[in-house]
Amino acid sequence: MGQLLRVMNFNVSRDGIGAGPDQLQSLESPFGLPHAERLFAWAGATASWPMRTDAGGSRGLDDYFTRDFARNIGAEIMGRNKFGPQRGPWQDHEWQGWWGDEPPFRTPVFVMTHHERPSITLSDTTFHFVGGDPADILDQARKAADGKDVRLGGGVSTVREFLDADLVDAMHIAVAPVELGSGIRLWESPDELRDRFHLEVVPSVSGVVHHLFWRK
Amino acid sequence: MGQLLRVMNFNVSRDGIGAGPDQLQSLESPFGLPHAERLFAWAGATASWPMRTDAGGSRGLDDYFTRDFARNIGAEIMGRNKFGPQRGPWQDHEWQGWWGDEPPFRTPVFVMTHHERPSITLSDTTFHFVGGDPADILDQARKAADGKDVRLGGGVSTVREFLDADLVDAMHIAVAPVELGSGIRLWESPDELRDRFHLEVVPSVSGVVHHLFWRK
Repeated sequence: MGQLLRVMNFNVSRDGIGAGPDQLQSLESPFGLPHAERLFAWAGATASWPMRTDAGGSRGLDDYFTRDFARNIGAEIMGRNKFGPQRGPWQDHEWQGWWGDEPPFRTPVFVMTHHERPSITLSDTTFHFVGGDPADILDQARKAADGKDVRLGGGVSTVREFLDADLVDAMHIAVAPVELGSGIRLWESPDELRDRFHLEVVPSVSGVVHHLFWRK
Repeated sequence: MGQLLRVMNFNVSRDGIGAGPDQLQSLESPFGLPHAERLFAWAGATASWPMRTDAGGSRGLDDYFTRDFARNIGAEIMGRNKFGPQRGPWQDHEWQGWWGDEPPFRTPVFVMTHHERPSITLSDTTFHFVGGDPADILDQARKAADGKDVRLGGGVSTVREFLDADLVDAMHIAVAPVELGSGIRLWESPDELRDRFHLEVVPSVSGVVHHLFWRK
């Protein structure tokens, strides 16, 4: 089967937007969007949400997606803007991501950046800061994943970059029932990808519509 | 969260039947049904079907269910009729189940029978033959599962027995688009379980309708 590159539990609005305009991202607003939780509330309501700290949560359809987050995943690749709001050279090394002392990844994570920085280990997640083109970075992540699949964590521009390089094998995009109007867009329409991918569209009672793509 | 008891990827017809009349089960007909593959063809078409030996298969909605088969499962409980077509005391110990040298379970499996027999290990699956009521057997399986969940593997009468004892925590039943008319029935209607369970009903393009239950 090989090692797949998979986008998982990635959230966009009905008009295809996954983050606010670049300049609006800040420490207070990781997505640069007002009420960004409207995009991912469905995931937080499930029993298997990786950040859940209490018991409870739903075990219906949506839970099959959050439950799949770590299954057979050996590494993640993420864009620098998913890791933090800083731009340009690192001013210091204090920032260690949004996720506290126990990040939910529990694998090596490759953060794409042109600006060097030493690796950081927090619990069982290690962040590596790497330059290069998508194919090079995917090579490094596959080696680190030791036979398992690699998750492509986003943000939107990073997903677009790997789609443009035709490196994505499977993709789960949850389309939330909100319109955002402006921001960084994953697509004008999911139909743009039908030439290269199978697509199943599965509505959930939570209001999101799961879009499942896999390579033809 | 505790250790859940979960029914997973269990197949019935639109009229609620999961196996033919008891006396029709045989070595040639494990389900005692003509064309039993109509019940589980959806699973065999997915990339993650545990018995798949070739590459390929779909990665849409149905694959999220077959992919979940082994996740966080530490033991299985099955009825004797899932293990084999024999009835009454074991005539010999030659029969080792339907699954060849590499059964897909890869955990301890507790086969419910009143007739003693030594355990069998095939690859990383060990079958234990155990008597007692459902609660006793679940206790044994939970200990063996070492903190993980327990899968309740069927057949129909076994699932009914654990439902009647109110021991089931979550259940995925795939309803296939066929009518069988006679056989062993899981339910007259899935609505019978709504008093104790949440229920989500999710149609798939394959024609099956996934029914997802979890305890209220």
